[in-house]
Amino acid sequence: VTQAELQRLSVRGVTLERRPLIRDDRGSLSVRQVGAGLPFHPLRYFLVQDVPAGTVRGEHAHRVGQQLLVCTRGSVTAVVDDGASRQEVVLDSPELALYMPAMTWGTQHTFSAGAVLMVLASDAYDAGDYVRDYQEFLRLVRSGRRA
Amino acid sequence: VTQAELQRLSVRGVTLERRPLIRDDRGSLSVRQVGAGLPFHPLRYFLVQDVPAGTVRGEHAHRVGQQLLVCTRGSVTAVVDDGASRQEVVLDSPELALYMPAMTWGTQHTFSAGAVLMVLASDAYDAGDYVRDYQEFLRLVRSGRRA
Repeated sequence: VTQAELQRLSVRGVTLERRPLIRDDRGSLSVRQVGAGLPFHPLRYFLVQDVPAGTVRGEHAHRVGQQLLVCTRGSVTAVVDDGASRQEVVLDSPELALYMPAMTWGTQHTFSAGAVLMVLASDAYDAGDYVRDYQEFLRLVRSGRRA
Repeated sequence: VTQAELQRLSVRGVTLERRPLIRDDRGSLSVRQVGAGLPFHPLRYFLVQDVPAGTVRGEHAHRVGQQLLVCTRGSVTAVVDDGASRQEVVLDSPELALYMPAMTWGTQHTFSAGAVLMVLASDAYDAGDYVRDYQEFLRLVRSGRRA
């Protein structure tokens, strides 16, 4: 059994976990499940790919939704921000998963050619869960409210 | 809003659904959520990659576990078998998802170079959920039991 390594970032509640691939002569496997590398029950996934060089994605927060970001192929740089602290993480292996709690402002950039970003989300799609304006995000964070 | 296409295979309960990518100038996105392309609440995911040419994976059934197979990059051929009927499906796009109910014998082969297979599973890992012997699988199917 391989050991997971958990790193707490300086951004509130955000963690980066490395969970080593299980390799054998039939290929490599990365696995996460609720309670072991997956801190919530996912209701939705999305895959982001074919992202042109220079593109910036994300640039929003979720009021209540939690997300787990895994770059399944290639690499991408993820920025996480809680309104007081900001940090950049390079996701360049399926071993790595970036957990973003609710009210984390997230941006992704520098997708490598062929990169595939998998995101697991705790909630079904709801347009009302998105905060798309950074100034509004800061007001919400500072007031301690989400709506 | 794009329309999903659902195909029922000749294998009991198995479906193949195509859900078109959402494309714009920032890349392409494929999304599924519980009730919309994801027929169960996932508790676990795994990613299979770096599979050498000629390798056959799977070759087991789950007594109660359900799975959704999506090839996020490249292509793979999936074989599904209910003990009476067998069918092969080429998963060559993240638009496609293959749903396998419990007690489906599954095999995957012909992974392309760079292929990444994502599997969402309805249950946490449990070695007792696996049926690894095909003759036992047939006995279970014919007796209508799972244990």
